[in-house]
Amino acid sequence: MQPARPRTVRTEFSSLDSLVVVLVSTRNPLNIGAAARAMSNFGFAQLRVVNPYELAFREARSAVGAAALLKNAQEFSSLTEAVADCTLVVGTTAARDRKLDHPLRALQHAAALIRRKMTSEVALVFGSEKRGLSNEGFSHCDWLIRITTEPQQPSMNLGQAVAVCLYEISRAPKLPMAHEQEPKAGSADLERLTEVLCESLALSGYSKSKDDRLVVRRLLRRLKLSASDSQALLGMLRQMLWKMRNQ
Amino acid sequence: MQPARPRTVRTEFSSLDSLVVVLVSTRNPLNIGAAARAMSNFGFAQLRVVNPYELAFREARSAVGAAALLKNAQEFSSLTEAVADCTLVVGTTAARDRKLDHPLRALQHAAALIRRKMTSEVALVFGSEKRGLSNEGFSHCDWLIRITTEPQQPSMNLGQAVAVCLYEISRAPKLPMAHEQEPKAGSADLERLTEVLCESLALSGYSKSKDDRLVVRRLLRRLKLSASDSQALLGMLRQMLWKMRNQ
Repeated sequence: MQPARPRTVRTEFSSLDSLVVVLVSTRNPLNIGAAARAMSNFGFAQLRVVNPYELAFREARSAVGAAALLKNAQEFSSLTEAVADCTLVVGTTAARDRKLDHPLRALQHAAALIRRKMTSEVALVFGSEKRGLSNEGFSHCDWLIRITTEPQQPSMNLGQAVAVCLYEISRAPKLPMAHEQEPKAGSADLERLTEVLCESLALSGYSKSKDDRLVVRRLLRRLKLSASDSQALLGMLRQMLWKMRNQ
Repeated sequence: MQPARPRTVRTEFSSLDSLVVVLVSTRNPLNIGAAARAMSNFGFAQLRVVNPYELAFREARSAVGAAALLKNAQEFSSLTEAVADCTLVVGTTAARDRKLDHPLRALQHAAALIRRKMTSEVALVFGSEKRGLSNEGFSHCDWLIRITTEPQQPSMNLGQAVAVCLYEISRAPKLPMAHEQEPKAGSADLERLTEVLCESLALSGYSKSKDDRLVVRRLLRRLKLSASDSQALLGMLRQMLWKMRNQ
């Protein structure tokens, strides 16, 4: 496992280098290879895999003609770590019948939005071939995208879904952000905040269920906190936590 | 070998049923299967294969879960026969360095044109994995399309290229947002939240100055809270406040 790249805030223009393709629990080495191939076709460079089936990742990497991109892919043991340096995390889903707690956007509308945010690291997360992303996986995402498909056949092959998403994002206009904005809180900041808020809620007697962590993580992601506001909130919560412990 | 379907001229409206995906000399059964899967995802029905490697086609057809679409695929011994009933034949190419005698269009521009012609049979032709379409193959085409890719990596995986083309041809011009926007928290909600947060901060020892209320109010406004998230936060803070007072 390698550490995530330090977060860099690139100014003004979005760059394809800022998109991080994250594959979670991928089973089939051909799909990892296919994702890597589509990434080189459309000009993307950062591939991260979370808990791939050991053999799948090894096979994909050692396949004849495996791109440099695949050899440089980073491996993580949790999605938390894989997206720690990302300021926007977008999940993918076939999502027809599943009840979702997240905003869901069609790929063609989301692509331009993603592109505009690519002035710093943006993660595009794909779940496993069989089940897609879990609710735990979704809770790390700011919002979700769906490729518009037939209602009877919503579930796409993983390599094809990656190709379609990257095609659409690569050709979205690379508009500069409309105005300077505060740097956003990264996923690592939000995770620290989740941690401290959950602890405070547990200690205060508010929390009863283990699912509260997912609820809290989703809530904090919806707030679109700036890095400095997230720091401020963290300080407030820590003080309250300290007070609850030491009274 | 089966005879091509009799040509039907559908009037007025284009129909996805009119698109015929033609795979020429495909080697890998997985690619035939992947093409079929993308076709069902995006609502297309007519698959034709020309001179596939015998084994590839047999394997693809007998694969577990092979779609009805694949079982109904028609086999031809020449491209001439395969496109006989089509009123427009569009070839695909990675085509950077090859000298082409055909008009070449980028997929995103060609898709609308293809869609408009789909009032009768339109063929979309893909060559073999290794070489793409031959000059002989091109000669059956009215014009060619190319997916815009990186100059260094123009050649796409066959199944992914099929998926990207069909996605672009199939996609509807507009899709409403799947989720209604949540109602936003009103100023009164935010003021209650400001009140309770300030009280909590004072009690915990975090606040030292009277100006803190303004800082907190501005911070809470920046969060763009929904009404329900604001309620949830208020509940959490009240519980913590209670705990700090009653420990």
